[in-house]
This record gives sequence, C-alpha cells and structure tokens, in this order.
Amino acid sequence: MTDIKRLDSREDDFYAALDQVLAWEASADEAVESTVREIIVAIRQRGDAALLEYTTQFDCLQADSVAELEISTDRLRQALATIPADQREALEHAATRVRAYAEQQKMDSWSYTEDDGTVLGQQVTPLDRAGLYVPGGKATYPSSVLMNAVPAKVAGVNELVMVVPTPDGVINELVLAAAAVAGVDRVFSIGGAQAVAALAYGTETIPGVDKIVGPGNIYVATAKSMVFGQVGIDMIAGPSEILVVCDGKTNPDWIAMDLFSQAEHDEDAQSILVSPDGVFLDRVAASIEKLLPDMQRKDIIRQSLQGRGALIKVKDLAEAVEVANHIAPEHLELSVEDPQSMAKRIRHAGAIFMGRYTAEALGDYCAGPNHVLPTSRTARFSSPLGVYDFQKRSSIIHCSAKGANDLGRTASTLARGEGLEAHARSAEYRVMKDA
Amino acid sequence: MTDIKRLDSREDDFYAALDQVLAWEASADEAVESTVREIIVAIRQRGDAALLEYTTQFDCLQADSVAELEISTDRLRQALATIPADQREALEHAATRVRAYAEQQKMDSWSYTEDDGTVLGQQVTPLDRAGLYVPGGKATYPSSVLMNAVPAKVAGVNELVMVVPTPDGVINELVLAAAAVAGVDRVFSIGGAQAVAALAYGTETIPGVDKIVGPGNIYVATAKSMVFGQVGIDMIAGPSEILVVCDGKTNPDWIAMDLFSQAEHDEDAQSILVSPDGVFLDRVAASIEKLLPDMQRKDIIRQSLQGRGALIKVKDLAEAVEVANHIAPEHLELSVEDPQSMAKRIRHAGAIFMGRYTAEALGDYCAGPNHVLPTSRTARFSSPLGVYDFQKRSSIIHCSAKGANDLGRTASTLARGEGLEAHARSAEYRVMKDA
Repeated sequence: MTDIKRLDSREDDFYAALDQVLAWEASADEAVESTVREIIVAIRQRGDAALLEYTTQFDCLQADSVAELEISTDRLRQALATIPADQREALEHAATRVRAYAEQQKMDSWSYTEDDGTVLGQQVTPLDRAGLYVPGGKATYPSSVLMNAVPAKVAGVNELVMVVPTPDGVINELVLAAAAVAGVDRVFSIGGAQAVAALAYGTETIPGVDKIVGPGNIYVATAKSMVFGQVGIDMIAGPSEILVVCDGKTNPDWIAMDLFSQAEHDEDAQSILVSPDGVFLDRVAASIEKLLPDMQRKDIIRQSLQGRGALIKVKDLAEAVEVANHIAPEHLELSVEDPQSMAKRIRHAGAIFMGRYTAEALGDYCAGPNHVLPTSRTARFSSPLGVYDFQKRSSIIHCSAKGANDLGRTASTLARGEGLEAHARSAEYRVMKDA
Repeated sequence: MTDIKRLDSREDDFYAALDQVLAWEASADEAVESTVREIIVAIRQRGDAALLEYTTQFDCLQADSVAELEISTDRLRQALATIPADQREALEHAATRVRAYAEQQKMDSWSYTEDDGTVLGQQVTPLDRAGLYVPGGKATYPSSVLMNAVPAKVAGVNELVMVVPTPDGVINELVLAAAAVAGVDRVFSIGGAQAVAALAYGTETIPGVDKIVGPGNIYVATAKSMVFGQVGIDMIAGPSEILVVCDGKTNPDWIAMDLFSQAEHDEDAQSILVSPDGVFLDRVAASIEKLLPDMQRKDIIRQSLQGRGALIKVKDLAEAVEVANHIAPEHLELSVEDPQSMAKRIRHAGAIFMGRYTAEALGDYCAGPNHVLPTSRTARFSSPLGVYDFQKRSSIIHCSAKGANDLGRTASTLARGEGLEAHARSAEYRVMKDA
C-alpha cells in the first residue's frame, strides 16, 4: 500500500498544508563547507599537484600528470562509433532537436540611432570558455551532457571543457558519445569540488573558464556556490518536481507512470497531481498500486511518493491553475482538453507539457527545450537553461556632439543633486560653451 | 603629488602586474554573517515585531506598527512637485530615456509548429513582484532608483516594493521624487538586513517579493546572498571601475575628469587609463595634478587613484583592446578616432562609451542604458541589469499524437540507456502500438 498524501482545496488550511508539502530547504552542512573551502584553497595554491592528490584520494585514480587525465576527442568519437546503433541514433536525434530549439533562443546585437546622431544599443557576445560538470557513478546521464553542452556551442562558446569523475577508472561510454555528439572541446576525468575549483581558477593544465554549469552532489554544489563571482554558475538545483494537472480524462495508468518518472529520480523528488475529479484521483491511486510493484526502481518511487507526493482535489480547472501558479513547478503537465488556453494563464513554470500526449519524459530527452529547469519554486524568477546563459550583453553608447551637449546638461544637474562633482564636470566638458 | 601606478606592456611581467592592480576579493566577515543570519531568522519567525525592533535599534526610528513606516504614493508625488524644477525635469528626462532603451530589451514569447503538428516555444512572463533596495544616508542616489525601477515596470512587474532606510527620520526628497517618476508601487522606510529579509519572506505588512535588486552595504549584500534561492537577486556589486582607452588625441583634462568621476565614488573604486601614447599619459598625469586640488571629493579621489588606479602604456590600440578584454571592465570608454571598429573587437565589458564626447557620466544618469553593470571582471559572464532580469521564460512543448509517437521511441531508448524505466514507460505509453 502506497500512502500518498491527499489534499482538498475546500479545507480551511489548504494552502498552509500545501506549503508544508512543498517545503524544502537545502541544509547547509558545515563539515562539507569546510572541506570544500580547503580543497579550493589547495587548488588555487598548488594547482595540478593538488588536483592529482585529490583525484587519487577521492576517485582512486593514479596518474603522473593531469595531462594523463585528459580524454581525447578521438576517444569520444570512438565511443560514439562503438555504442549500439539505436543509442547512437537516439543521441543524434535528440541533439538535432535540442540544437534546433536552441537556435531560436540565440540573442542578436541591436542598436538604434537617435535624431541627433547618438547611437544606443546592446552588443551580444558569447562566453569565451565554459565548464561542464558531469557527475560520475550512478547518476551519469548522457542526456544531461547534451542539454548543457548544446546551448553553449550554439551560443558560440569558443571552448567547452567537460569534467567527469571516473572513480576507479570506470568510464561511461554513453556519456563520452554524448560529448562527441554535442561538440565538447576538451574532457578531463576529474570530479568533485577539486574539478570545480580547477575550472574556476585554472591550473597549469586545466584551463580556467568563465562559467560552470551542470549538476553534481553536495560537494560540487557547495564548490559552485563558493566560486560564484570568480566565474558564473547555473542555478543550484533542488530535488526535481512534476505537477500534473488533469481533467480526469487521461488514462490513469499514463498519469501514474508520469508521476513515477519524476519519483524514480530520488527519494526527495516530488510528484503532485491536481484534478477537480475526485474519482479520477482514486483511479490514479489504484493505478499506482497496480503498476508500482513491477517497477525496477520501486523502492525509490514509493519513498518519494509517500514522503513528498500528493494528490490534490480542487474545485475546478481554474483553481488548478491557481494552485499551479502557487507551486511554480519545475515541470508542469497540462493533461487536459484545451491546454493552449490553460497555458496562457500559467505565470510560473519551468516547462509546460501540454496535452495528453506530451509526457514529461519526451521533454527530458528529445523534444528540444532544455531539461535543466528551475526547481523549488524558483520558476517565479528564473528560467530554463538556454543559449542566453552562454551569451552576455554590453551596453553601447555613442553620443554625437549634439547628443552629449543635451545629455550633459541633464547629467550635470542630477550629478550635482547627488553631490558627485567630478561626474558633473566630466559631463559639462562635453557641453558646448556657446550652445 | 598624486602617485598613480604606471605600467608598460613591454615589461616581462606585465599581465602579472596588471592582475595585481585588478585583484579584488570581497572579504567574508564572519561577524557580519552571524548578525545577518540572526536577523533573517528573527524576521522569519516574528515578522513585523522583529522588523520594528531592528528599525528602532539601527535607524533610531520609533513606530507603533510597520504600516506607519509606509510612505504613501501621495507623499512621493508631493516630493516630485516640490523639488526644484531643473531637478524634476532632469529626472523626467532621464526616466524617459531609460524607459525608451528598456523597451528595446523586452523579450516576447515565441513558438513554432513542426510538420507533424508538434508545437515548441517559449512563454515569457514578468515577475509578479519585485523588491528594490535603496540605501539611506550618504550614498542615496535617485539615479539608482530610476535604473532599478524603470526596467521592472517596463517588464510588467505587477508590484514594485521599494525599501529605503531613513535613519533618524531623515528622508531624501530626490529619492522619493525618483520613485514617483519611475512608478514604484509601495515604499517602506526600512533598511538593512531586516528589510531584505522582510522582502524575501514577507511579514504581516511587508509583501514577500520574487526578486530583490539594488545596492547596499555589507549587511545588505550579505543578506541578499543568504536569501538567494528563496528569491532572486541581482548581482552583488564590487567596487566600481572605469577603463579608458585613448589614442592620445582627447583633451587630457577631459580624460583626467573621467577618471575622477569613477574615483570619487569611494576609495576602492578603480580608474585605469590605457594609451599607446606615453607623452599623453604624462599629460593626463599633469591634468590630474592640476585639477585634483579643486575637487570637492579630492581626498577620496586621491586615495582611489593611488591605491587602485593605473596609467598603462601599450604598444598600439590593438594591444589596448587585448588589455581591455583581459580586464573585462564595468565601464569602458573608447576615446579614439574610430570607436565603432574598436567596439566590435571588445568581447567583455559592462558598457562601452564610444568616442570623445561620450563621458561615462552621461551613461550613469541619462543616456538610456542601465548603470547597474557587472564589476570585478564578471562582464566575462554577466550583463547589465535590464528588463530581462524582471522577466522569465517557460518552455512550451505540445506534442501531436504523431510527434509523441516519434519522440517516444527516442526518449525510450535514451531512458533505458540511463536506467530510468519509468521515464521509458511513460514515453512508450504515447507510442502508437500499431505504428
């Protein structure tokens, strides 16, 4: 018996109860923080030597030099050539679609000229160099390589450096193949906080990058937040979540499996179903009972559903939209008759999966949009990973003599109002004395 | 005698010496961190009551309720009506130009339909609510209110909540007037870490927001970085910097004053001049000597120039571009004959001020582009504050039956390759059995 929390929006304390289901606070771990701080200092001070020591210590990998830890692009192509054909084709199909979608996101420079000849604009440039962290061990996902690497290359990042720990020398061929498909430039078999520090500050062998993206464990996440400022980072992800809104007319087995697909990630993952149809909620609960025992990852799924899942009964679909906006989910599945009009009323979601055919899993792998999405209600203020995360803008201001004359007067007034005389005088030099 | 460091790119250790000039590491202060952590906990637990206590303690401001600390929009309009006419006009002129530029940055939703009827896209929405921190005391800048508030309103943020401490009840009329011009929705006279915590978590009276922007002291900056995740934040700014590249043909007084305009902000501000013309560098040094004694903020300017400034001699303008890209400055002034072609070779800069007439001060106040810019070399990976910081994207995926059929096969192959069976089965449900 899988015991999933049931909520009903008619209850007085509904939103308080919902907030309790949603509550998630990443626990700061002082021991982890001090270990990571020490590792970063060592890498900054001793570079390659420290990196080799940590790699021996944590990954049981002996090497005489960091150069030995580089995996050549030939080796990546070899992996791609030797994996089963259906996997190769699936990777290439996914990459093609992710690339096509990413191309739409690319920002261009723009400018406009004012009547007096002053030019204003925005110059868009790619990052010079980006680092991609790929976890080793059980959570090694080739799809994650594609989702992080493809937007960087579409943005025009000149050098994309991937790091992936290979504890005891075990290499995941699918991950190498994905790196080949995505066009990763260099790969090093290093990981943990030491790899993050090496990417952030550079060592004799590892090139320092401008931004580090990609998922990792608590050490990696802590290291990323500590090097932030020295380099850019993507978001620090919380547990993955799905919110399914269903009108009660989708096959309950499909919905149960959609909930499972989120829950199977790990025990902290969150799967929530909202429906105005109470009988349907019962049917999905029955499908869960029926389907769960056969699932390979049934223990994880059960723990996730019991600990963090919920089936929520609402008054109608309009209220379901309210609930969705409150939750601001990472993944939002609108398994309803008219998902188009419902999506327009969604204000906060990482990705919106519309209609009964659009399983979240399609988006996770190959629909095109990125699967790196804002978690833990951060969709209220942040966006999926995209090409724009590997581009940046510079403002362009080119004043004509006439423009500087006009703007100089305004700037001078405001600068003197703020007590900044040098600002005022710098502007006033550009005001024509006889104008 | 103002003793500014002189560097020459012909020296062997030039880039090492330059990096030493640029070096800046925000010092983490454990005492500040523990105070701020305590304040955040108190605000989360006791809301308004704690907020009132801290406001009494830190700002010497007595109030019976937080509601008393709200400054009405009528009061803002009154400030606008009573400040001197030239200041009102300057604020309005600046706001109009900042708004016009911001309108160009607004992102729109887009989508495309594939041959099989599958729709992919990106839905753009504004943040529901944003918080704007405005410092009190000596560094109260009305221009900063405009630069932070206008993009938020252009983005369509529904409610913009400003906080500004008013120690001992002292209110800056220009700041209130700027809030009126920018269309700020609500203003509270609170500040410090307690104001940041109140905006992040909400209290009985202060509405919780989705993102907090705006400058502040070490307590404010520390509080912002601690509430990050609960809400979005803008960048944590380091000291302000300018890099002037000059071919030697601009009036040296103008360039000296441009360097002053950065240096007068505070002792840590950084002003650097790069030129291939050594004689010109001497002339600028002479202008500095001549002009400095008359400046109101001469002590700050001198300390800044001596501690962090530099005059750099390079081989030619091409090398000046290399140096500029290495520095990745917040403000880059290209005081040269052909700034257009030079700007195209700039890969990293917050804002580029082109030509002899475009003093940085014009951009600080009223040219149009934002004056909130990435500092401390972060222009390598980040952008000016803009409308896009108050908008976010949701991916849109709407598969047709045919589309789900094709994508389902690819997703299934990849999911099984990753050992995620529920993902695979969720996708396979959408694959037509007879296809």
